[in-house]
Amino acid sequence: MKNNQFAFRPTKFSNQLDELRAIKFLDKDNESETNPIILWKSFLSKSFLEAKTSSSFEEKLKTYMATESQNLSEYLDTATKVTVTAFYNVALQLLKFNPDVDFSFSDPLKAMKKIQLIIADHNSNSFTINELKSAWYWLLATHNKNGQTYLDSLASKGYFTPFYGKVSQPLLFNGKTLPVFNPHKLIREVVYVESPQDSDHDGHRDLLKAEILRPYETENGLKVPTLYTASPYNQGTNDETGEKLTHDVNVPLKRKEPNDLHYEDIAYHENASKKIPAPRTINGQTKRAEETFARESSYTLNDYFLARGFAVVYMAGIGTKDSDGLRTTGDPEETTSTVSIIKWLTGQLPAFTNRTDNIEIKAWWSNQKIAMTGRSYLGTLATAAASTGISGLKTVISEAAISSWYDYYRDGGLVIAPGGFPGEDADVLAEETFSRRLQPGDFHNIKNKWNKQIQTIAKDQDRETGNYNRFWDARNYHKDFSNIRADVFMVHGLNDWNVKPRNVERLWNGIKDNGVTQKLILHQGQHIYINAFRSIDYNDIINLWLTNELLGVDNQAKEIIPNVIIQDNTKPETWNSYQDWASDKNETIKYNLSDDKLTTKTTETNTHDERSFKDQLSETDFKFYSRHNDVWEKDLLAGDKKISANQLIFKTAALTDELTIDGKVNLNLKVSSNKDLGMLSFQLVDYGVAKRLNVSPTLLSKNSLAQTYDWREDDLREFTYNKSTDCKMISKGHINLQNRHNSYKVDELKPDIFYNVGVELQPTFYRLLKGHQLGLIIYATDFGMTVRGNQDIKYTVSTDQSFMTVPIHQN
Amino acid sequence: MKNNQFAFRPTKFSNQLDELRAIKFLDKDNESETNPIILWKSFLSKSFLEAKTSSSFEEKLKTYMATESQNLSEYLDTATKVTVTAFYNVALQLLKFNPDVDFSFSDPLKAMKKIQLIIADHNSNSFTINELKSAWYWLLATHNKNGQTYLDSLASKGYFTPFYGKVSQPLLFNGKTLPVFNPHKLIREVVYVESPQDSDHDGHRDLLKAEILRPYETENGLKVPTLYTASPYNQGTNDETGEKLTHDVNVPLKRKEPNDLHYEDIAYHENASKKIPAPRTINGQTKRAEETFARESSYTLNDYFLARGFAVVYMAGIGTKDSDGLRTTGDPEETTSTVSIIKWLTGQLPAFTNRTDNIEIKAWWSNQKIAMTGRSYLGTLATAAASTGISGLKTVISEAAISSWYDYYRDGGLVIAPGGFPGEDADVLAEETFSRRLQPGDFHNIKNKWNKQIQTIAKDQDRETGNYNRFWDARNYHKDFSNIRADVFMVHGLNDWNVKPRNVERLWNGIKDNGVTQKLILHQGQHIYINAFRSIDYNDIINLWLTNELLGVDNQAKEIIPNVIIQDNTKPETWNSYQDWASDKNETIKYNLSDDKLTTKTTETNTHDERSFKDQLSETDFKFYSRHNDVWEKDLLAGDKKISANQLIFKTAALTDELTIDGKVNLNLKVSSNKDLGMLSFQLVDYGVAKRLNVSPTLLSKNSLAQTYDWREDDLREFTYNKSTDCKMISKGHINLQNRHNSYKVDELKPDIFYNVGVELQPTFYRLLKGHQLGLIIYATDFGMTVRGNQDIKYTVSTDQSFMTVPIHQN
Repeated sequence: MKNNQFAFRPTKFSNQLDELRAIKFLDKDNESETNPIILWKSFLSKSFLEAKTSSSFEEKLKTYMATESQNLSEYLDTATKVTVTAFYNVALQLLKFNPDVDFSFSDPLKAMKKIQLIIADHNSNSFTINELKSAWYWLLATHNKNGQTYLDSLASKGYFTPFYGKVSQPLLFNGKTLPVFNPHKLIREVVYVESPQDSDHDGHRDLLKAEILRPYETENGLKVPTLYTASPYNQGTNDETGEKLTHDVNVPLKRKEPNDLHYEDIAYHENASKKIPAPRTINGQTKRAEETFARESSYTLNDYFLARGFAVVYMAGIGTKDSDGLRTTGDPEETTSTVSIIKWLTGQLPAFTNRTDNIEIKAWWSNQKIAMTGRSYLGTLATAAASTGISGLKTVISEAAISSWYDYYRDGGLVIAPGGFPGEDADVLAEETFSRRLQPGDFHNIKNKWNKQIQTIAKDQDRETGNYNRFWDARNYHKDFSNIRADVFMVHGLNDWNVKPRNVERLWNGIKDNGVTQKLILHQGQHIYINAFRSIDYNDIINLWLTNELLGVDNQAKEIIPNVIIQDNTKPETWNSYQDWASDKNETIKYNLSDDKLTTKTTETNTHDERSFKDQLSETDFKFYSRHNDVWEKDLLAGDKKISANQLIFKTAALTDELTIDGKVNLNLKVSSNKDLGMLSFQLVDYGVAKRLNVSPTLLSKNSLAQTYDWREDDLREFTYNKSTDCKMISKGHINLQNRHNSYKVDELKPDIFYNVGVELQPTFYRLLKGHQLGLIIYATDFGMTVRGNQDIKYTVSTDQSFMTVPIHQN
Repeated sequence: MKNNQFAFRPTKFSNQLDELRAIKFLDKDNESETNPIILWKSFLSKSFLEAKTSSSFEEKLKTYMATESQNLSEYLDTATKVTVTAFYNVALQLLKFNPDVDFSFSDPLKAMKKIQLIIADHNSNSFTINELKSAWYWLLATHNKNGQTYLDSLASKGYFTPFYGKVSQPLLFNGKTLPVFNPHKLIREVVYVESPQDSDHDGHRDLLKAEILRPYETENGLKVPTLYTASPYNQGTNDETGEKLTHDVNVPLKRKEPNDLHYEDIAYHENASKKIPAPRTINGQTKRAEETFARESSYTLNDYFLARGFAVVYMAGIGTKDSDGLRTTGDPEETTSTVSIIKWLTGQLPAFTNRTDNIEIKAWWSNQKIAMTGRSYLGTLATAAASTGISGLKTVISEAAISSWYDYYRDGGLVIAPGGFPGEDADVLAEETFSRRLQPGDFHNIKNKWNKQIQTIAKDQDRETGNYNRFWDARNYHKDFSNIRADVFMVHGLNDWNVKPRNVERLWNGIKDNGVTQKLILHQGQHIYINAFRSIDYNDIINLWLTNELLGVDNQAKEIIPNVIIQDNTKPETWNSYQDWASDKNETIKYNLSDDKLTTKTTETNTHDERSFKDQLSETDFKFYSRHNDVWEKDLLAGDKKISANQLIFKTAALTDELTIDGKVNLNLKVSSNKDLGMLSFQLVDYGVAKRLNVSPTLLSKNSLAQTYDWREDDLREFTYNKSTDCKMISKGHINLQNRHNSYKVDELKPDIFYNVGVELQPTFYRLLKGHQLGLIIYATDFGMTVRGNQDIKYTVSTDQSFMTVPIHQN
């Protein structure tokens, strides 16, 4: 196994001593100790929390080996110095590494180097007293075999429970906050924030329910920062009624009437004359909430911070249970809803204790510094909030987030489903998250308005054309990227075909001139969280980041955390750091299409090669693939004979050197359809037998990652190798041949006429190993994403006039 | 959805009132109330725990509908009586059912009947004041849509936190204990029990570490019962070194030398002259432990009881981390180790605070009534403990437990792997669970003895012959079934091919004359726990059971809980109760084999039909199937042409009526091998297109089942339908043709001579639907379970002299 810790903070020795004192590893009894053996034993005795007497402690010492032949008890009794070898033999055992599997007592440093564990400075074979203190410091900061720092593992055994109730501010170690706040004394309260809009048109400003968890210490004056998660799902979902709205995708692609639209024609502008009801008249003030809750629908990353002196606020927003308003799937009203909580947390909007009495309750415990967290729709709303430039929002951690809803439900003038959810659309998601339905007494009054709203969304989203229009423009946060003032921490899966990587690429490249700090982690997973992986210290990284952003601690987080961390796709447990990703300054390779090849040679002039494929399948095959998208995906990649006439495959020669694609592959094709309509789909493929990482992480052990002592737990996971495979899809793209200029202007498509078509595939970062071949598959119906009409259409590519541009990463 | 609650306790009205008072739904303010509307509102106000003021409560009332047009607040303001319809409209909402999906406001009772929810008695359309009290009582006892009683759902919201610290004994409702003990104040302590043996021959009696969790109230004199889980896994496992020992199964079946062994020749007898070191000299007494722990490896069923006034004790046993001794995989030494904890809990053995000082600590808080819990190996040790007849062990809940290790690793003179684990054996499991290895300081001293022990097990388990021998006889608990004095609650999956159903059948039928109470639940799953399923109230059942067994409460548990509960294999969420299972009194149907048919007609005399198959596959197919057991399993059932020459398939005609198999199918065959060795495998199959339940449960929602407020959680699961399939394996069997008499006597096998062979297939309870066909597949190599030699052997069945006997369930 390999450890990757990016959140180590270089720390001066004097500061190490201060920190060891603060967490009580050094105290008046041992800090003047000059004998390293005695000091080491003292450190160990503070760590063996299970042993409550010296007899018991001595017994525990016997269970560790210090050398190949001496146990730790014997060593401490007989040795006169702490050798580096003995120290790290014991350290490895404390970190749960196993001498039968992971290391050898004769040379622990060899294993530590291989596992990438930090080895403290030493000038000889044994530690001086100061070197030992430093070695202990670094051991506390080092991850164990279960993906936790040794200090956090001690915390989960109760090391910090004696600190409960005795701290008046966060306690730091190596630049990160520690779990010194009792999670069972958290204050849980509900407030209703008054949002400056009336999205359900009932004549009153929308009240939005917020669930707050804050450390008990806030009652004694501690001001705390807030992790705010806006999650439309967290008050419940309507799975059944949502499912019912799901659209049939076994419908034909339709010809669209050409138009001459310009962006101004479809640009969304907020209705400036919109009337907002007056705010409620405040009837009084209180510091005490009237409503509580037992168990929020939580994000385990937030749970981790709850014991570390942060408040956490959850809000589901307009149209959800206990809130007013209607769901809109990401429009400006939802953004207004989202930022209302931040405005309350920073004193800019009122909240009330209930929905009737108009008694105001302020966020009097808030230090007015807020970060937003959460993945997918949650991360999307974080991005949306940031795009308003709202003050108080210091940073967003935007995980697998949508940055434009057109890039989620559409592409290139086509309806393109999020991977795994054919037939889903903005209306389906609105219905699924409309949790006001879950309270029939409330739903009774809003039912008619809601039915109308759903019909409006269904119409405006326009599945007929798949075009970009005013509806989608209202849900495009790119337009407001320039407003972003919060630092942005992005996380995305390079195999996320639900929220596709273009969403994060646009954000990454879209705020480079904003003057904010931006960080990016790209992993090899799908649409997942990465806060419980063994091979990367994600929690620590975010801790370092938020300690800086929200507590204002000068811990050099912005310098320490690499700008870009990318998980390698060819080796397990390998995360590399980079300066940038998908830069438009990257060099490119131009591959020409010829016959079934991708070649960098210039095509000879005067050859006019054409290759054709049809879209239609036999009725049997069509029905089978419709039901088994996974088999279709496999057969397409393998060029199975059932489907080989429905695709074109082009491959490079076997690569003579490794090749790393970094960014957006572009296609320039000359193509025709034999009908007056048509669409093309593309897959970029890595051909070559290799073991590859599973895109779904493997569960290593359930509930094994404790957020602190006797508190919530998370499942430890890791990306592991699958059996070896022949090939792997790298990226995808789609285009409607009637949207050759852009996604709102519809072009004429004449049968059998060749047109130039440019397509940008989803961005990636992908290492192709030597001997592999880069491939491109051109096809039409994408069973997982497009409509599936099984239409009798023939497509022809003029290969000699077609090429592919591949951006390359240079080391 | 359908609810199945077996743990409802019929309760007299006067007792209902007492219980409602005890849990404070009735109190001095409302118990004399005569207006049902006011009383209902009072009940509701005690239930809406999130609302801390009357304003907030009134708002919550508005979110429920009482009738099709009135919300609950309006209803309570205007109605003069509580109609049954209004009550259950609200009840269904409180139980999280959804009017858009699960019921209609116009007729809630219709849905309640369909979902199988209890409807309280009522003499008119509205509830009298007493009827209302009773209706509220039953509502509290009814499961909600998330698999929890309404009262438990209130508990998870904090209903019982005001009871913390104020109870001096368990609090009951409807015959079951309630979570009134603060789980965050549990005492966690470690003791070292002195076991009366020296299994590692170090000259000292084995000390065994036990981890104890007990309610804080025990410190104030409360005596509590104990749930004791003996889990060899729970101090950690050696996955890597265990894996290394895994045996190669791609080896040929070998001819065995015939013998004339009788049982006495291989019977295991305990060495009566075995010398045991003297007990340690006790140096003192204490009530305080010296060692604690932070997070035990827990079973969520135990977690549920920890808040309900039970202690929980975990022990891993001989050869595990922090204990003495060596692993043996289930022999009498392990049984002695297992029962030592019970002996300590009942004052029959001493325990010490640590391993050196000999200071005794008694289980002074124990009420000396113990139940054992846990699945698989854990349940096996519970069965083993029960088979000693030890006092204090009132009951065992034996889930998916082994009752004879021969039935786990062997069958019919063959090495037969537990499904999914080819190559595993007693030695592998011993190594995996030998967690003393995880403490290198301890392992260092025991290493040589351990290596010898593993070699001894490897030899004695005898993979060469697969015969039953002294090693397996020592690990056969059947021999001691007659000692069992504890009541036994068995749970097993009918699709458990890891611990196969024979293990539970032998126990079920083996203790019928013991005079103990025995209960059985058979589910449609594999090797799983069933304590977090939506459709059966397993936690409640066990609660009722243990409240009776361990607290001595006369709650009629033994009468209320059906003797046998079996999940239907043809319909989701259907659990039926029966008097017995696999009774040898069941009527049988005799099916003759003829051609490719199973027929109840007598075969005509003088026909001599023979059918043959070979075992050998092409090298390619053999290699493929060796790596892909799942594909082999599918191809075998489908009679795929790759494998059709390697099997015989016999099928009945389409059934004209439903047929339910209940028990052990027996085969009587006349067969020959063309070599002097041979083995046969059998599968009983249900042929017929149908939707069938997945044998792996579906996750409904993660962490949604709270054991109580702010405490541990479990994932809610349910068996759901798969896509429709053509057939399903019902049962399996295997035999070595040289073990025609029994599994220790080796018979001669002459090539091409026909022998009579009797085989008992694994017991089942299986409903075949009308129109389906019952099938039998005869083959040799079982890629998932037998050795795989790919040998050139031909087998011939004389079909006219072969038949199958199928036990039938009659309603």
